Amino acid sequence: MPVVTEQMQYKMKGGTHIENITQPIQETLKVSGLQAGTVTVFVKHTTASIMIIEDEPGIRGDTTRLWDQLIPSNPDWLHNTHNPGEDNGHSHLRGQLQGAFVTIPFVNYTLTLGTWQQVVLIDFDTRARTRDVVLQMIGE
Amino acid sequence: MPVVTEQMQYKMKGGTHIENITQPIQETLKVSGLQAGTVTVFVKHTTASIMIIEDEPGIRGDTTRLWDQLIPSNPDWLHNTHNPGEDNGHSHLRGQLQGAFVTIPFVNYTLTLGTWQQVVLIDFDTRARTRDVVLQMIGE
Amino acid sequence: MPVVTEQMQYKMKGGTHIENITQPIQETLKVSGLQAGTVTVFVKHTTASIMIIEDEPGIRGDTTRLWDQLIPSNPDWLHNTHNPGEDNGHSHLRGQLQGAFVTIPFVNYTLTLGTWQQVVLIDFDTRARTRDVVLQMIGE
Repeated sequence: MPVVTEQMQYKMKGGTHIENITQPIQETLKVSGLQAGTVTVFVKHTTASIMIIEDEPGIRGDTTRLWDQLIPSNPDWLHNTHNPGEDNGHSHLRGQLQGAFVTIPFVNYTLTLGTWQQVVLIDFDTRARTRDVVLQMIGE
Repeated sequence: MPVVTEQMQYKMKGGTHIENITQPIQETLKVSGLQAGTVTVFVKHTTASIMIIEDEPGIRGDTTRLWDQLIPSNPDWLHNTHNPGEDNGHSHLRGQLQGAFVTIPFVNYTLTLGTWQQVVLIDFDTRARTRDVVLQMIGE
Repeated sequence: MPVVTEQMQYKMKGGTHIENITQPIQETLKVSGLQAGTVTVFVKHTTASIMIIEDEPGIRGDTTRLWDQLIPSNPDWLHNTHNPGEDNGHSHLRGQLQGAFVTIPFVNYTLTLGTWQQVVLIDFDTRARTRDVVLQMIGE
């Protein structure tokens, strides 16, 4: 069974809300029947990203601060001025730069993450939303 | 047939020119003979990137504005001052940060993109060029 | 033999030290027994990244300058103020934005890199460390 695809859903709050999804990925992998290969974790939205971080409160706070500096919320983004009711131009720009997916090798039914690496979903939008995440494992 | 590789070419104008390549990817996938797996879309150049965005005019304009703010064109980049005739130091820095590839799962001959997600080629260079893009599908 | 996994180690100096790892990846690929597929290059650390650049001295210097501008070293990052002894908050933020991995297609035992594309390991940390990199090839 070389390809296994699963879907997960998360209720997210927006505003750089971070949810650690490492354990659900690892648990899905354990029951996939595949022992070695890659898993691609893909979020099906343009204003959210998947990333790998050391997940501790300082880094979570710094991540919020970083995005507020690099790509601030601003009513003047064209996405907001062209589209009545939109206020999330910055959320799109953050999501497309951070990226919608990560790919991680696994061996022996286990992700090859380093000691401090955790996989997180981050939501850049301006309101609470339910987010769909695809997990796809390819291997042997 | 677990691996299928195809190549595409695009004439790009530089200057954050964006070309939507979602439909050609999906069409290539349909005739690949693979029903589930991942497709990796890889641009073979250092001053261009593949990314996933909501493709509407506001976001296209904001993307240009963002890069002009984050990594401006500047004759003082060392790539320009060290290499006579070069003026695209900023194009390299943008391309390496945004990244040369995306990987997207597919199921039932269809990319698992969300409603608003589109795959685009973006050209950060300072002149028109033809760009090579590799599509590689792996699966079953 | 559809999945082949190898590990490499590099002694890195931190401070945006760059090591070109293209040739070792290509050599590992040649002896993998796989002729077509994708290779995922994954660094097992949160303060280092894998990226694709034109590897010439100007770009190396510009890369250092870029990161010092975008995400400066600063004792006020919360990772530093919350965790006694830590000074690498900026290293984490750089690593998570640039990303821990790249995926590259290969055909005919050869990476589909463009003429100027080189794969490098970049170390954003504040001191010398040994870095583990996983190479995983999937294909046929």
